Amino acid sequence: MPNAIPEDSVGIVEPQIAHFDTPLELTCGRTLDSYQLIYETYGTLNADRSNAVLICHALSGTHHAAGYHSADDRKPGWWDAYIGPGKCIDTNRFYVVCLNNLGGCSGSTGPTSIDPATGKTYGPDFPVMTVTDWVNSQIRLGDYLGIHTWAAIVGGSLGGMQALQWSINYPDRMRNTVVIAAAPRLSAQNIAFNEVARQAIMSDPEFHDGRYADHGTIPRHGLRLARMVGHITYLSEHSMGDKFGRDLRTDKINFGYDVEFQVESYLRYQGDTFSESFDANTYLLMTKALDYFDPAARYDGDLSKALGQAKSNFLLVSFSTDWRFAPSRSEEIVDALTEAGRHVSYACIESPHGHDAFLIPNERYEAVFSAFMDRAANEAEQQKACEKGETACT
Amino acid sequence: MPNAIPEDSVGIVEPQIAHFDTPLELTCGRTLDSYQLIYETYGTLNADRSNAVLICHALSGTHHAAGYHSADDRKPGWWDAYIGPGKCIDTNRFYVVCLNNLGGCSGSTGPTSIDPATGKTYGPDFPVMTVTDWVNSQIRLGDYLGIHTWAAIVGGSLGGMQALQWSINYPDRMRNTVVIAAAPRLSAQNIAFNEVARQAIMSDPEFHDGRYADHGTIPRHGLRLARMVGHITYLSEHSMGDKFGRDLRTDKINFGYDVEFQVESYLRYQGDTFSESFDANTYLLMTKALDYFDPAARYDGDLSKALGQAKSNFLLVSFSTDWRFAPSRSEEIVDALTEAGRHVSYACIESPHGHDAFLIPNERYEAVFSAFMDRAANEAEQQKACEKGETACT
Repeated sequence: MPNAIPEDSVGIVEPQIAHFDTPLELTCGRTLDSYQLIYETYGTLNADRSNAVLICHALSGTHHAAGYHSADDRKPGWWDAYIGPGKCIDTNRFYVVCLNNLGGCSGSTGPTSIDPATGKTYGPDFPVMTVTDWVNSQIRLGDYLGIHTWAAIVGGSLGGMQALQWSINYPDRMRNTVVIAAAPRLSAQNIAFNEVARQAIMSDPEFHDGRYADHGTIPRHGLRLARMVGHITYLSEHSMGDKFGRDLRTDKINFGYDVEFQVESYLRYQGDTFSESFDANTYLLMTKALDYFDPAARYDGDLSKALGQAKSNFLLVSFSTDWRFAPSRSEEIVDALTEAGRHVSYACIESPHGHDAFLIPNERYEAVFSAFMDRAANEAEQQKACEKGETACT
Repeated sequence: MPNAIPEDSVGIVEPQIAHFDTPLELTCGRTLDSYQLIYETYGTLNADRSNAVLICHALSGTHHAAGYHSADDRKPGWWDAYIGPGKCIDTNRFYVVCLNNLGGCSGSTGPTSIDPATGKTYGPDFPVMTVTDWVNSQIRLGDYLGIHTWAAIVGGSLGGMQALQWSINYPDRMRNTVVIAAAPRLSAQNIAFNEVARQAIMSDPEFHDGRYADHGTIPRHGLRLARMVGHITYLSEHSMGDKFGRDLRTDKINFGYDVEFQVESYLRYQGDTFSESFDANTYLLMTKALDYFDPAARYDGDLSKALGQAKSNFLLVSFSTDWRFAPSRSEEIVDALTEAGRHVSYACIESPHGHDAFLIPNERYEAVFSAFMDRAANEAEQQKACEKGETACT
């Protein structure tokens, strides 16, 4: 029933698909001759196309960032708390675009798509992607939508890394960069957790070297374990303790290997749900893109030199209990931006929710985020007025 | 060649086996009618048997804590840095005993042993153990060796938990307790990591509900993953970064799923080695003993009430970068001991090595540990003199 949809929601949304036939050269040396990107848009593109905001998703994200797919939809998009009329990314002012990344499993071309060269699914033959490849594909989506200059590129976690790479690679095609709960590159521990997840998937006998589709199966156990490990790193020790403590599922210890503690039950459920809905090859690819991300590498390892390419304003946000990408990792970016002479706002938000905090309502986070986006919206409107000759152009 | 054995080593040692035929009642309600414990001893028991120190091992530990099994042995026992002539646990003064816990896979009765009732290996039918069960079996080992009162019960991690339980359950049979890098009970996050390890093992198709021995196989992949996850939690983010950083194994990125970063290579190696040498059912059992450990539970959740039973002196040690059992967890124990009016020394040692720090040489750790053990040795010698009538008994 549409009357169940909240007033500050973007409402019912429909994904769209853009096809591309210009070959895309990838970092790995291979080329994708053609591909499609699935995306959603919220709000209205203004006449001079100056109010577009691109949302980049994280590891298991999709193009469905806000609103509902039907009146019966039980859950809105993954960032609904922050995208909508009157919200931080205000759809009364912005035209918001969110896509599923290349290599994803939600509708954009990826391992589950048909490889035109063979007529079979790509599976493990789909090329390994990098954050730069995604940025290049997103540029094309902008071209397709008639957006030359984005008002802002915004993302959390791996999404924040895409925003950061955008600011370096395409400084003239964006005005603002929002990097939330990210890092300038992964630590050895971050890579180690990704490697455990990959080994869980790849050592599952149902993985069949990534050709599980040909065998009519999926590496369910491996994906489930990968998600369980991931989930531990998304929550803070504190929030896990608050949520579950040492609560037992039944009223006494059963001295066996079935679920005993609530936290076990929660993790198994999260793992099971994920393993039925996410593609294993995509999971591998996404974790590798994380591992490879290192924008400073092409600048002699000097992050401030890399960010010296950027022209946008920056907002950086971290969360006090995030131990996946701790505040100190955001602060490395802030320091490099400052050294590079860029405009940067930074807030470390007190939150008990660990890495997941970037998805969860929080008053101070909202205040900081809204203020930055408001300025970006004013800028976009000023841009429009300037182009109409109503004000002087800056 | 014996001349390769360092002078401060206990030298070549030989494990011994003690058989027990008095049934042991377990916390889970079951009874072990007979069992054996494998153990090693270093140093000499004095005439009045007052200088005995019991070493309790951690999750994957064994009875082989110090010295070498042969002149060709490449590695000494797991705590060789701290046990030997002139070392913290000085074998010139102490008689040191270390056993493999019941349920282990290094020679004590456990899942790989023959169940006399069936004539087949116990496998998954071996009872689930608790820290209290281990303490009860250790009491019997003391009786067997003629040791009524231990000069000290000492352990790190899960070993420290056994020492803590000893102090509560058998206050009259010990004089000192050393609890290193432990916690009064596991947090939800600790349980979550254990659960991932268990699920990795149990979802391996080679696990066969724990009856892999009957199928002539082992759940190699599961054990390997369990160890990889464990290993991440044993090291600090800092030490992983120092050790591996983002170093590649070859000179360039290969854009595939083989080993690329050194940290991946290290984890795979650790996992592979472990999976060939450790029993999966034992691993499950050890992690459950960790999860169940909660000495305050029988005292209305009041740890200081639990520790009010203790009579010994305590040394607590934690390590600054240990995030498995962080310093704050040791401090919970220190606070409860203080509240209970017990003598407690506490040191949080600066170390980059995370949880593993308890095994690694460190000057301040050695100084604190040695000072406490010296006092315990003096006490033992005073006890001996008192019993000889040379001094007044305290």
